[in-house]
Amino acid sequence: MKREKIKILFDKKETIDEALVLGWVRTNRAQAQFGFLTVNDGSTILNLQVVYDEKLKNFEEISKFRAGMSIRVVGKIILTPNAKQPLEMHATEVEMLGDSALDYPIQPKRHSLEFLRENAHLRGRTNTFNAVFRIRSVAAMAIHTYFQQNGYLYVHTPLITCADCEGSNQMFKVTTFDLNNIPKTEDGLVDYSKDLFGKNAFITGSGQLHGETFAMAFSDIYTFGPTFRTENSNTKIHANEFWMIEPEMAFCDLEGLMDIEEEMLKFVVKYVLDNANAEIDFCDQFIEHGLKEKLNKVLNSNFVRITHKEAIDILLAAKQKWEFKPSYLDDIAKEHEKYLLDHFNGPVFVKDWPKDIKAWYMKDNDDGKTVAAVDLLVPGSGELMGGSQREENLDVLLKKMEIHHIDKDTVDWYLDTRRYGGCIHSGFGLGFERLIMYLTGVDNIRDTIPFPRTPKNCDF
Amino acid sequence: MKREKIKILFDKKETIDEALVLGWVRTNRAQAQFGFLTVNDGSTILNLQVVYDEKLKNFEEISKFRAGMSIRVVGKIILTPNAKQPLEMHATEVEMLGDSALDYPIQPKRHSLEFLRENAHLRGRTNTFNAVFRIRSVAAMAIHTYFQQNGYLYVHTPLITCADCEGSNQMFKVTTFDLNNIPKTEDGLVDYSKDLFGKNAFITGSGQLHGETFAMAFSDIYTFGPTFRTENSNTKIHANEFWMIEPEMAFCDLEGLMDIEEEMLKFVVKYVLDNANAEIDFCDQFIEHGLKEKLNKVLNSNFVRITHKEAIDILLAAKQKWEFKPSYLDDIAKEHEKYLLDHFNGPVFVKDWPKDIKAWYMKDNDDGKTVAAVDLLVPGSGELMGGSQREENLDVLLKKMEIHHIDKDTVDWYLDTRRYGGCIHSGFGLGFERLIMYLTGVDNIRDTIPFPRTPKNCDF
Repeated sequence: MKREKIKILFDKKETIDEALVLGWVRTNRAQAQFGFLTVNDGSTILNLQVVYDEKLKNFEEISKFRAGMSIRVVGKIILTPNAKQPLEMHATEVEMLGDSALDYPIQPKRHSLEFLRENAHLRGRTNTFNAVFRIRSVAAMAIHTYFQQNGYLYVHTPLITCADCEGSNQMFKVTTFDLNNIPKTEDGLVDYSKDLFGKNAFITGSGQLHGETFAMAFSDIYTFGPTFRTENSNTKIHANEFWMIEPEMAFCDLEGLMDIEEEMLKFVVKYVLDNANAEIDFCDQFIEHGLKEKLNKVLNSNFVRITHKEAIDILLAAKQKWEFKPSYLDDIAKEHEKYLLDHFNGPVFVKDWPKDIKAWYMKDNDDGKTVAAVDLLVPGSGELMGGSQREENLDVLLKKMEIHHIDKDTVDWYLDTRRYGGCIHSGFGLGFERLIMYLTGVDNIRDTIPFPRTPKNCDF
Repeated sequence: MKREKIKILFDKKETIDEALVLGWVRTNRAQAQFGFLTVNDGSTILNLQVVYDEKLKNFEEISKFRAGMSIRVVGKIILTPNAKQPLEMHATEVEMLGDSALDYPIQPKRHSLEFLRENAHLRGRTNTFNAVFRIRSVAAMAIHTYFQQNGYLYVHTPLITCADCEGSNQMFKVTTFDLNNIPKTEDGLVDYSKDLFGKNAFITGSGQLHGETFAMAFSDIYTFGPTFRTENSNTKIHANEFWMIEPEMAFCDLEGLMDIEEEMLKFVVKYVLDNANAEIDFCDQFIEHGLKEKLNKVLNSNFVRITHKEAIDILLAAKQKWEFKPSYLDDIAKEHEKYLLDHFNGPVFVKDWPKDIKAWYMKDNDDGKTVAAVDLLVPGSGELMGGSQREENLDVLLKKMEIHHIDKDTVDWYLDTRRYGGCIHSGFGLGFERLIMYLTGVDNIRDTIPFPRTPKNCDF
């Protein structure tokens, strides 16, 4: 007999005379002559209610089944339109496959998120993480689907890199050396020539530069992979290892970039609502009240586009006391983001940022003061994506690199994109965990990634 | 005017009165009154032939356009059923967007693969790498599509890990320390407590153990991410950074595992043939003659399933001189793989391997001598996937760990999968670059990954 996944049973909503289900016991309510097992197999957040009764030869044994056990159930699927759940199973066979020791940490009660982080290897068995990680998986597929449908090339940019262009103090060092016994040169310094790559190597914080070289061959490309930062900060939105999506588009200016960001976000939201509806319902009910309304509203909104200057104008005109005074020369603080989002009651692109606070590869605007950069702010989460038109003029770029103290020799290959067939091009970065927080309402990045890596925290 | 991608023009094969194309010049054949540009925009391996003539006001200028320049072309798309290519463009406007310096390395001639590796940032602009990286992108989407359609959860297992279970000598060390100034304890040893994670950290060689914990919550999961090995070997099939797919299935035994591997491979091959047909045609013509036939044959074959013992029986009975004598206790060499593939004239699963040469987590068979492991061999490439049923019995597993000198304390969390609701389960690993070699005919792993990392080679 072929196994039926619980998700398929709920999708089909059909009577089945004999079905086989394999999964794990969530609860067991045993009474004198019958009992109810709730069974989850991880295919959906929905549990299957299994009714068993004393006609089963191992009724006594089943009555004692505990949370966490893996079981095999055969029975009839019955539609129950008047009950809380649309269907249930009347069991003809129930068998334990794997026992669950008495000290099973995930009991049928509410556990704190802190406790579940300490049991990250088991937390997928709770409703919350069943929902969050299913949405994460569906959202990843949404992103691939959007870009592939639109002809983008998925590029695996390298994780290990020797191009120290982002400042090595932000990057982890990678080595094959025994740290207790590092080979030294005559000068007493580390002899990197003896390491596997023959030089100082890092794990990357971004695939953008490599991505740009591919955009100059394939027009539209995207990366989707892990990135790393050594930041020693314990906040709800920082992790040392996280996943990023970095699209780069040739022949695309800042306005085109915003079009793509908006279209992509709407596509992903719609895909998740369509393909993880039970999980979104759960998050709406238990994690962020109004989540579903928030997401549906985004689908139907036109994202506002304002300049950084216009944003500051609005903030300065606001009748509000600021912790950080809005400034035409400075970044926008969390409180400012929130005000702008309330003001426009929907997602806002803020573009044309002061050049001094933005990265060296961003395109200088004609005003000499700003760059063609854009941040997308979304209700509930603030900044979700950051992107820019890239400086395609080699001479201007070289000057900017000098100002930002970027060693041009280490990225000479990158500069070739401006020497040979360069063109107007743009790209953005989307932190995948930030997106999952937005899609689920979860407010701590540690609860959006299976095994989070944060300072002093690298268990499992 | 909206840009038309060249792939769409070739897919549609329709006359268009006025189309806008943006791309890069591949060749320019200028004659006295007219000329031909071949233009590629990276959306397909196919080039668009653009015909221009002296009626264009900048005809002289266009005549001098060089390989590598980015250009903007407006013109009429004309069907040319009797020509080599099904359509061409008659230009009404041709404009240079980005110049290409005279020393542009990618000239319209055959370059060696070695030369192109040294220009990895430009090689996507050649036919070969246009085809290979497009197939890579399409194959990645095929894998996601297969698993998501079948209800698998995509899991991002951690890259940074402190669980030293695979032997740290195979793993890169990761640190935030300045290697010239490492904090020491009173004993003069590295003081890992001062590092970001407070302990010795690595980048991972496999997500399997983490994946298994998720399979015990979600039934069917897969990973798809980068993995790392410090192996100091310069061969055509080893890289220090590569991408792996590692599915894990609860309630799945070895036979079920083989069913999934076979179904998945056929799905991926079919998807690539359907979605990258022009690129496969190119590889068939210029990289591996007979590639397309090989791939189509796999679609229609039933994969043979034999035991390791049966394989050795066949090899010993063969009228052939071996460099390595086949042994019931040993691995199967490349020459043996080749013989078996010829013998069966199609893909072969070899299962039930001698336990001493296989990993500690594989399920002991009842014979006491073998484990429920399986390798899939495919014509042209040899071993493509390796998997096993996992030992789900905690006591047996603990004994195996002792024999293999695995420190059980570092993976105690993993052992919980056997303490709480364990079940029969299986998984496999598929090296993504190995798959790309198989799908394209490319015989060096360095030519299947955008920026390869091999010993002494970490440029870009």
